[in-house]
Amino acid sequence: MKLASLKHRRDGKLILVSRDLTQAVDASDIALTLQDALDEWDKLSPLLQARYEALNDNNIGERFPFNPADCESPLPRAFQWADGSAYVNHVELVRKARGADMPESFWTDPLMYQGVSDKFIGPRENIELCDEAWGCDFEAEVAVITDDVAMATPSEKAGSHIKLLMLVNDVSLRNLIPSELAKGFGFFQSKPASSFSPVAVTPDELGESWQENKVHLPLEVFLNGEQFGAPNAGVDMTFDFAELVAHAAKSRHLGAGTIIGSGTVSNLDRSKGSCCIAERRMLEILDLGSPKTPFLLYGDKVSIEMHDKEGRSIFGKIDQEVVPYR
Amino acid sequence: MKLASLKHRRDGKLILVSRDLTQAVDASDIALTLQDALDEWDKLSPLLQARYEALNDNNIGERFPFNPADCESPLPRAFQWADGSAYVNHVELVRKARGADMPESFWTDPLMYQGVSDKFIGPRENIELCDEAWGCDFEAEVAVITDDVAMATPSEKAGSHIKLLMLVNDVSLRNLIPSELAKGFGFFQSKPASSFSPVAVTPDELGESWQENKVHLPLEVFLNGEQFGAPNAGVDMTFDFAELVAHAAKSRHLGAGTIIGSGTVSNLDRSKGSCCIAERRMLEILDLGSPKTPFLLYGDKVSIEMHDKEGRSIFGKIDQEVVPYR
Repeated sequence: MKLASLKHRRDGKLILVSRDLTQAVDASDIALTLQDALDEWDKLSPLLQARYEALNDNNIGERFPFNPADCESPLPRAFQWADGSAYVNHVELVRKARGADMPESFWTDPLMYQGVSDKFIGPRENIELCDEAWGCDFEAEVAVITDDVAMATPSEKAGSHIKLLMLVNDVSLRNLIPSELAKGFGFFQSKPASSFSPVAVTPDELGESWQENKVHLPLEVFLNGEQFGAPNAGVDMTFDFAELVAHAAKSRHLGAGTIIGSGTVSNLDRSKGSCCIAERRMLEILDLGSPKTPFLLYGDKVSIEMHDKEGRSIFGKIDQEVVPYR
Repeated sequence: MKLASLKHRRDGKLILVSRDLTQAVDASDIALTLQDALDEWDKLSPLLQARYEALNDNNIGERFPFNPADCESPLPRAFQWADGSAYVNHVELVRKARGADMPESFWTDPLMYQGVSDKFIGPRENIELCDEAWGCDFEAEVAVITDDVAMATPSEKAGSHIKLLMLVNDVSLRNLIPSELAKGFGFFQSKPASSFSPVAVTPDELGESWQENKVHLPLEVFLNGEQFGAPNAGVDMTFDFAELVAHAAKSRHLGAGTIIGSGTVSNLDRSKGSCCIAERRMLEILDLGSPKTPFLLYGDKVSIEMHDKEGRSIFGKIDQEVVPYR
């Protein structure tokens, strides 16, 4: 099942999108918003699934062409966005470039931060930036949305709470990070609003590419029309999504609609490229002694997409331009 | 105006509460939930205000006795909870006790972290704790709720976006903090769900006690029936709420319903006591060489309240017991 949120007031209006992303049908009579659907997922998802099947079978009258530009992020705002850093290879690399060792515990205890979730950017909306000197970067990731997860749910049971998957552009302001992390309270100003793929999909849409709570497909990133990276999201993922959900739930209940991110996708195989500029700059520092690739400037365009093994886009494309904030 | 949320589904049902906290009236025909009211505050608050005045004038028929135990936190879940640390004296003290200097910049650049907001604890609900060894602590604070705040709003303009005030118990798991902060990404497991006062109030309810974007009244904390502290929230607050809102909005828009916390209230005058156990333990370390007061154990009861100069409770009382999580 593929779901999206048409732009409509603050929380969007729920639609179902055909598997090939060409057609859509209103679903707001079943649940007005995606959050409403997640709040009662067990009851409402069978109704949504039936309509989704009718849409794919061309067996429904009121369909309309699907346009990602009409969409918000699937959850236009959310009650929780917790971003992990599951590709520990990426973390080690970033540290190596600044001459810092990585604690051994990073291989067994996931990194995760509480992200801002009150206003996500739409998948085709501009990234408004106050100052190029802040060092704006994209981070291409995969994320899951859960239903209610009880406190202390172990990872063996956490996988069944994963109801939807999306792609993410976790926008980061690199030059604000060092001073902010030095204060000891984590990211705040350095992590402004993120954007998500036009469509959220149920895990079954990934077929055999969803295994062991990981997405085994390349995550494709383009910067100004040139491929920047396409590492496989299922490779070198130290913690799978069930482990990330369990980590988040250790000392708290997670409410339905909680979004958990993978962190920047990264493969040890350098030929796969990178999912953020910071990683490429780290590789340049290690290879050349200094970074060559600048962070994002006004007018730069970023896109993030994932195709299945038959070459069909699964989530639609995140496609954004960095613009000055007025 | 005083507002509360009766327990009802996930987001509660909006009611107005009389100034003396004895009577209430349904307001869900104006806005079903407090979030709905905040989403259209300029349009809806005059309607709410008119009914509030009728309630206080005993000029409304359908009122009922107000019972805080029937309430969720005013926002049972929120799209953003950002907690500052505006009483820098407290921060300095905590650092001194562990022999660490505080950077000079802490006096000019607010500390703030992104808190979890998907499921707050009700003001009279138990604090469920998996393990006493986690070092559970309360933190008594004041918080504001904003309407929409545009990115880069300066502090001179941020004060006008403060629509409501509440009290907070920011539950903290002290023994999980050191290893979590050492990872560099800030609090996550160490900051589980917070609870808020039964009632949220508009700033005018504070009269002259709301000045310069600070609440100039003692915040009263009791542990197992004994007063633990009553520092004045308007004293030694290095950053006022307008400055905290502006800090939060530096690189992002803030959505309506954003909650911004003051951090643990603390006065330099030690006779005023403390608003968290950690601070008292720090004072014990400095005075006696080692801490004497244990963190919260199962069965411990915490209450937080604030009275006006005539001795009337403004927000109602947070009153909670720590219980083992089953």
